[in-house]
Amino acid sequence: MASSHFSGSISDQPVEVIESRFQPSATHGADLRFHGIVRGYEDEKSLVGIEYSHYPAMALQELMRIGAAMERDYPPHLAQVHHVVGFVPAGVASIIIRVQTPHSAEGFEICREYLRRIKTSVPIWKKPVFAESNSDAKTS
Amino acid sequence: MASSHFSGSISDQPVEVIESRFQPSATHGADLRFHGIVRGYEDEKSLVGIEYSHYPAMALQELMRIGAAMERDYPPHLAQVHHVVGFVPAGVASIIIRVQTPHSAEGFEICREYLRRIKTSVPIWKKPVFAESNSDAKTS
Repeated sequence: MASSHFSGSISDQPVEVIESRFQPSATHGADLRFHGIVRGYEDEKSLVGIEYSHYPAMALQELMRIGAAMERDYPPHLAQVHHVVGFVPAGVASIIIRVQTPHSAEGFEICREYLRRIKTSVPIWKKPVFAESNSDAKTS
Repeated sequence: MASSHFSGSISDQPVEVIESRFQPSATHGADLRFHGIVRGYEDEKSLVGIEYSHYPAMALQELMRIGAAMERDYPPHLAQVHHVVGFVPAGVASIIIRVQTPHSAEGFEICREYLRRIKTSVPIWKKPVFAESNSDAKTS
């Protein structure tokens, strides 16, 4: 879903596929991209990856609400957010937040605030998949 | 040139070529990339692009000095910086600053600080190429 300044999506499409479609802009001097990467450990245990799940309509609705609120609360910018759902292996991105601004100064703060709001309120759940449970499955 | 935590380069290679070689990391949950894009205008005049020039050894030496100083001044992180020299068309990136951190909070501040220091002290010069001078050239 998209407004004039914001587009948001939540699906099983990898971040790199979404990012490969990003359009350049000659009116925005700053193009900042935050990739949230699945780490290969949690509480010192090895992780194979994370399984993300969500209530589709609810999560996207909240993401779009954040986009609209950010448009009101911050200087003019473009933003694109994609969150992957389903299994994401360690070392791979589960989210990208792209923020384009005319000048660089404001882009960092805006991108960081998108991340903060998304983490706080978009209903997407994480289930860590540990290396142990993987090897259990293989031996059963 | 590279240290264990920083690599810097300045060449005519496009940012997208450099970025396509970036390696993923499963120990860094945040991968932040700042693309500095050539804008299509300056002082309300249309720009075709910018011609970047530098003293090769001096500019790279200063970039590497910044990388070493950032390692001392900020929490552990990985960083890669590439600056394009030569002609860069409007809408295309002339610099990428990639910062990887274990958690997202510190990445934004570190990336912003790399940008600030690079803009302040790396001796790379910009010559705007205006649309008018381009059409002049064609008619002469």
